[in-house]
Amino acid sequence: MSILVVGSVAFDSVKTPFGERNRVLGGSATYFSVAASFFTDVRLVAVVGDDFGEAEERVFRDRGIDIGDLERVPGERSFYWAGEYGFDLNTARTLDTQLNVFANFKPKLSPAARKTPFLFLGNIQPDLQVEVREQVAAQLVAADTMNYWIKNTPRELREMLRVVDLLVINDAEARELAEEANLIRAGRKILSMGPSRLIVKRGEYGAAMFTDHSYFATPAFPIEDVFDPTGAGDSFAGGMMGYLASTGVEDEQAFRRAIIYGSVMASFNVEEFGPERMLKLTWDEIRDRFRQLRAYSHFEEG
Amino acid sequence: MSILVVGSVAFDSVKTPFGERNRVLGGSATYFSVAASFFTDVRLVAVVGDDFGEAEERVFRDRGIDIGDLERVPGERSFYWAGEYGFDLNTARTLDTQLNVFANFKPKLSPAARKTPFLFLGNIQPDLQVEVREQVAAQLVAADTMNYWIKNTPRELREMLRVVDLLVINDAEARELAEEANLIRAGRKILSMGPSRLIVKRGEYGAAMFTDHSYFATPAFPIEDVFDPTGAGDSFAGGMMGYLASTGVEDEQAFRRAIIYGSVMASFNVEEFGPERMLKLTWDEIRDRFRQLRAYSHFEEG
Repeated sequence: MSILVVGSVAFDSVKTPFGERNRVLGGSATYFSVAASFFTDVRLVAVVGDDFGEAEERVFRDRGIDIGDLERVPGERSFYWAGEYGFDLNTARTLDTQLNVFANFKPKLSPAARKTPFLFLGNIQPDLQVEVREQVAAQLVAADTMNYWIKNTPRELREMLRVVDLLVINDAEARELAEEANLIRAGRKILSMGPSRLIVKRGEYGAAMFTDHSYFATPAFPIEDVFDPTGAGDSFAGGMMGYLASTGVEDEQAFRRAIIYGSVMASFNVEEFGPERMLKLTWDEIRDRFRQLRAYSHFEEG
Repeated sequence: MSILVVGSVAFDSVKTPFGERNRVLGGSATYFSVAASFFTDVRLVAVVGDDFGEAEERVFRDRGIDIGDLERVPGERSFYWAGEYGFDLNTARTLDTQLNVFANFKPKLSPAARKTPFLFLGNIQPDLQVEVREQVAAQLVAADTMNYWIKNTPRELREMLRVVDLLVINDAEARELAEEANLIRAGRKILSMGPSRLIVKRGEYGAAMFTDHSYFATPAFPIEDVFDPTGAGDSFAGGMMGYLASTGVEDEQAFRRAIIYGSVMASFNVEEFGPERMLKLTWDEIRDRFRQLRAYSHFEEG
């Protein structure tokens, strides 16, 4: 089954202790759709300016991603983010944010988009997420958000939480949203806000998944050479949702495997700047890491 | 097989957001030996003052821990630590440290102690750890250390690393010891310093284990009510070494199960002040959490 993703397509300038790149293709919808495209058909809804040209289009087309619903605003520029990572590579320091076309983004969905069975609401304003969600008759709706919305639009965020099935956020966001330092308690509190399932991304420590009657946790795939963590969370979500959509199954075991595929996609993504590593990836490499991660965390009862 | 542990027996005053306790029995050798005592025979080498009385002795005797090698210094007081935890419960703020008898501690080993097959060198001065290690003909020698020794006695610490089989430290200590932010690289670097195996405790995120040819990681047992994290690392080490000694087997699968038992013991220990929760523990409870943790991290290849 296919996936619809709504989010940002952006240009990022990124500096890490290992090098820097100017205006690399990025944005949540980009990372998500590239990762998901290894598993199933993906359709993208976003907005770009006329700095988005032939070369950028080719990235999506080469991965078979449908950009028919990608809005172009002539005479304006795409969303731009500049950031810097220190040696621990855990948190980015934002140097510049230019919303540009993104400031007035109103997602416009084609009739085909409205019928997509899997929907991922990337990290955009919660009220836009709700608007999109209401237009799509999806069987599974997942969403991401960030500390900015938790702090500044709490009412709209609460509304969004009531209309999604699955929330995919990181560790710090979960604690902030629940106002609870203990992640297990935070997880339970967030489930009471609406979603029936919560996936918490923990970076180098892996991921955890909560429902009212189950708990799952996995370590991350061990990576020695983390080059650029930008987009890791969206690559995770893309791999995770991509796998789920490819099977159409939504039982606990399918979600667990989906998290492992998400972890694998994130592990590749951080190995090079922007989405560069994912763009060279083969299915064999993905499957190998899935099996390796299983071996790394497996133990016999003895 | 039996275990010898060398470390501190102390009195701790602990304040957490959930309450406080004055002069609770603590110290690395206490937590370690109580946890290990659920699995095998334990002999303890430490030093106390005459504030260590009947009540404290009973704690060890009730768990069948051999305190024949526990040195008493009349007219002096035991090691004392006072600390406070904030809401995140991750790091303790030390309010007071009184070394007392511990300042001049020279471990004295009985002939029986020197023949113990499993040895755990708790977090004491590295040169004392080496001294003890040289007196014991053990088949497996494990050690802990801390940032204080990494910073202040690096030469002695390097010497200690050359004479132990297994190092058990936490996340931050591993990064500091290796001078490397990436934990996977840090692990490899530490293995090159001597130990053939490294176990890294990651608190609420679980644990990871490194050898030159294997990697294992597990999430932590999820705990909603973390009450007092003091002693979690030593309870982990005690459960881990206790299980290993109880089987006498040292293959990769045995070490992996040992880490799960260590995680289980730590998960119990944080649920109440000091070692109180462990002192009430039953073997059925331990086995149940072992199985639960397995279920929490298990996934099928599909």
